[in-house]
Amino acid sequence: MDQVKINLEEHEIPKQWYNLAADLPTPMLPPVLPDGTVLQPQMLEAVFPRNLIDQEMSRERWIDIPEEILDILYRWRPAPLRRAVYLERYLKTPARIYYKDESVSPSGSHKTNTSVAQAWYNKQFGIRRITTETGAGQWGTALSFACHLMGIECKVYMVRVSFDQKPMRKTLMNLWGAQCVASPSPDTHAGRAILKEMPDTPGSLGIAISEAIEDAVSDKSGRTRYALGSVLNHVLLHQTVIGLEAKKQLAKVGIKTPDIVIGCAGGGSNFAGLAFPFTQDKIHGAKIDIIPVESAACPKMTRGEFAYDYGDVAGMTPLLPMHTLGHKFVPLPVHAGGLRYHGMAPLVSQAVVEGLMRPYAANQVESFEAAITWARTEGFVIAPETSNAVACVIKEAVKARDEGKEKVILFNLSGHGLLDLHGYEKYLSGNLEASCAPDEEIRRSLAQIVRTPEAPLRRTGRW
Amino acid sequence: MDQVKINLEEHEIPKQWYNLAADLPTPMLPPVLPDGTVLQPQMLEAVFPRNLIDQEMSRERWIDIPEEILDILYRWRPAPLRRAVYLERYLKTPARIYYKDESVSPSGSHKTNTSVAQAWYNKQFGIRRITTETGAGQWGTALSFACHLMGIECKVYMVRVSFDQKPMRKTLMNLWGAQCVASPSPDTHAGRAILKEMPDTPGSLGIAISEAIEDAVSDKSGRTRYALGSVLNHVLLHQTVIGLEAKKQLAKVGIKTPDIVIGCAGGGSNFAGLAFPFTQDKIHGAKIDIIPVESAACPKMTRGEFAYDYGDVAGMTPLLPMHTLGHKFVPLPVHAGGLRYHGMAPLVSQAVVEGLMRPYAANQVESFEAAITWARTEGFVIAPETSNAVACVIKEAVKARDEGKEKVILFNLSGHGLLDLHGYEKYLSGNLEASCAPDEEIRRSLAQIVRTPEAPLRRTGRW
Repeated sequence: MDQVKINLEEHEIPKQWYNLAADLPTPMLPPVLPDGTVLQPQMLEAVFPRNLIDQEMSRERWIDIPEEILDILYRWRPAPLRRAVYLERYLKTPARIYYKDESVSPSGSHKTNTSVAQAWYNKQFGIRRITTETGAGQWGTALSFACHLMGIECKVYMVRVSFDQKPMRKTLMNLWGAQCVASPSPDTHAGRAILKEMPDTPGSLGIAISEAIEDAVSDKSGRTRYALGSVLNHVLLHQTVIGLEAKKQLAKVGIKTPDIVIGCAGGGSNFAGLAFPFTQDKIHGAKIDIIPVESAACPKMTRGEFAYDYGDVAGMTPLLPMHTLGHKFVPLPVHAGGLRYHGMAPLVSQAVVEGLMRPYAANQVESFEAAITWARTEGFVIAPETSNAVACVIKEAVKARDEGKEKVILFNLSGHGLLDLHGYEKYLSGNLEASCAPDEEIRRSLAQIVRTPEAPLRRTGRW
Repeated sequence: MDQVKINLEEHEIPKQWYNLAADLPTPMLPPVLPDGTVLQPQMLEAVFPRNLIDQEMSRERWIDIPEEILDILYRWRPAPLRRAVYLERYLKTPARIYYKDESVSPSGSHKTNTSVAQAWYNKQFGIRRITTETGAGQWGTALSFACHLMGIECKVYMVRVSFDQKPMRKTLMNLWGAQCVASPSPDTHAGRAILKEMPDTPGSLGIAISEAIEDAVSDKSGRTRYALGSVLNHVLLHQTVIGLEAKKQLAKVGIKTPDIVIGCAGGGSNFAGLAFPFTQDKIHGAKIDIIPVESAACPKMTRGEFAYDYGDVAGMTPLLPMHTLGHKFVPLPVHAGGLRYHGMAPLVSQAVVEGLMRPYAANQVESFEAAITWARTEGFVIAPETSNAVACVIKEAVKARDEGKEKVILFNLSGHGLLDLHGYEKYLSGNLEASCAPDEEIRRSLAQIVRTPEAPLRRTGRW
């Protein structure tokens, strides 16, 4: 019997986060304002605490993880690295498939790695209340948990359609003492205006972001800030503990570098968390195929552009240099709600532009097929987002079989699907669609991107 | 920082199950028929495969775990042993609280330990189809998974009220290829008769058992058998891997025997799995307080009798020597559905009678309070059943604090509560009741127990 689980002892947990910005061959482009001027850090101070802004701007390669954050992480970290021997046997592949299991966290996904760090830094800065938005509820749940531990109030604006469809996510947030309201809500100017105009709107992530930011910046006491669960540099930084642990675990079974590294990518944080430490190796010469897997319903890397674009639908944020489908792009309603974001983290986008990563887009049917195969071999029910990564894993493992190559494939199992079984139900009853974004829709949305003269627009499409 | 997680490597997994029947000071009483004659093994052959009947009757102390079963268990075993340092700090207790985490299995509870073993033995015996009943769905899910791996057909009769209220459990069963029908169903004589009489009945575990057994024994090909998820000796045997692992893990942090061992007890299997290996030590002189925690809604050990009684409501099974409230007892509808069983496993009952165990009954409100405290300190959402064990853990840890004693408490986290969040929702909104069984109800039910002259009736009540 081959070894299935590779443990890491607590004393082996990484003590520093890894910052890819320090190693990218070309320096990162800065965020800019719509007039093209470079964003100054102090402009973000109403939104984020200064210590997290510093981290966002940092070009230091290694950043110490405070002892107090490690003390929280020990609840579920180091996370297991497992070998998917049962899937390997089923596929009859000579490839060895390893995966980090981030579903073991209290909130059931990787999101908790950054929520506890963000809550801690906010607490250090004297913040007493944090606002955020959540779509399917993974991020809202993770932040609620973290705020509870810090004694910080938490208010989550949850997209109304999810609020109504996934009441159990709200229960989890309440369990950890957070307030969760359906967005649009009557609690903000933005919410009230939209409710007046469209009383029956199902809401959107864009609206929820607007409400959460307005709530944070309008607190006159200065003790409220906003938190984001992906996209930004400091969020990706906090996730690198995943890849750093994986490296130590692979070393225990004699693997220095895997041949292929795979993660699903919505805003990019779970993928980056696993992939960045290996991207560093690749920059220094290692031969690794690093694959961010997006949803074919929201194919910003494979069919979008690398451009300056807004992070939110309403255009309230600075312009970020990233792969985007245009900030007003409305993806088809795939069950992988976490992959329905129009943009990609600037750090991941830059790495893609540099040729360090090779994006792949999986459609909803191949993803759920993969998830079913996973549940019937490995036994675990994965999140719809994660299923996109597994679709790519299976594709690569089959390719390795057909080519007779003993490749090592590593991927991130970003979360479990126990609160997302509705999508499985639909797949099993034959009512699920592939849901690929229509060409026309993408063309129309890309045409709306504000093209700032200062932003070097580089079309992707090397692959 | 104290060590939170104690890993066990794969090669350290126990290779044998432990059979407490070999060590009990007084030999076990046999199952009997209503006329008082002792049940002969062959009488069970229409219901269970011969190899499992042999295991049921065995008095061997150690029984080898087949290599093929270990190969399945490696998906999630060895399971982690963790120390609840965050709860300890919150309670300011000098007690050290350790727990086995059985929620990490594919189906989310300890049930999978026996479902894979039972499916494997059925397969060895040439069985092609297994029927069973399920209440809340944990057992049906676990058996579906196991049957899928063995290529055995599986049909689950699910109590109708749960079938309607917990559709996601059915999705899980379908995902693993099982057929799940609401019970009473039109598929059996028993089901049709009840539907004719009470078309709107919410169903009961008793009815579902009747349907599943009828289905199994009426297959003329002889290739269908029935499977049970708790109570019987062989089921408890398969769970002892939990306690045997825990022993090895405690030894790694220098603990030979814990002072207190706790598990929730419905039919008794998760409790027995953890407790039996320590009960062996206690028989040989170790000083351990071993506590099965039942629901105050179904207090068979603390307020029932030790007597011969039927295992099912309809009276189809042989009479088992056990703690019971009477086989027609209808417990209040607590969310801990797995604890709503009128009887207790004969092996556990006998150990209680011998004074080796000290039962405790937790009410629903103290249990959910404990579950909320657990989620807000340790971070994980536990099953309503498990919350009864945690209520007792907290009580003992507080007592250790008040007495200034550095006790070691070990308990079994039998399952997660991610598919049972409805109970949490009710608790948080203040709509949950303590749900203790009324005296009058218990008296009435106990009066109905058939008192076989051959059965030595011993009233419990040493505590």
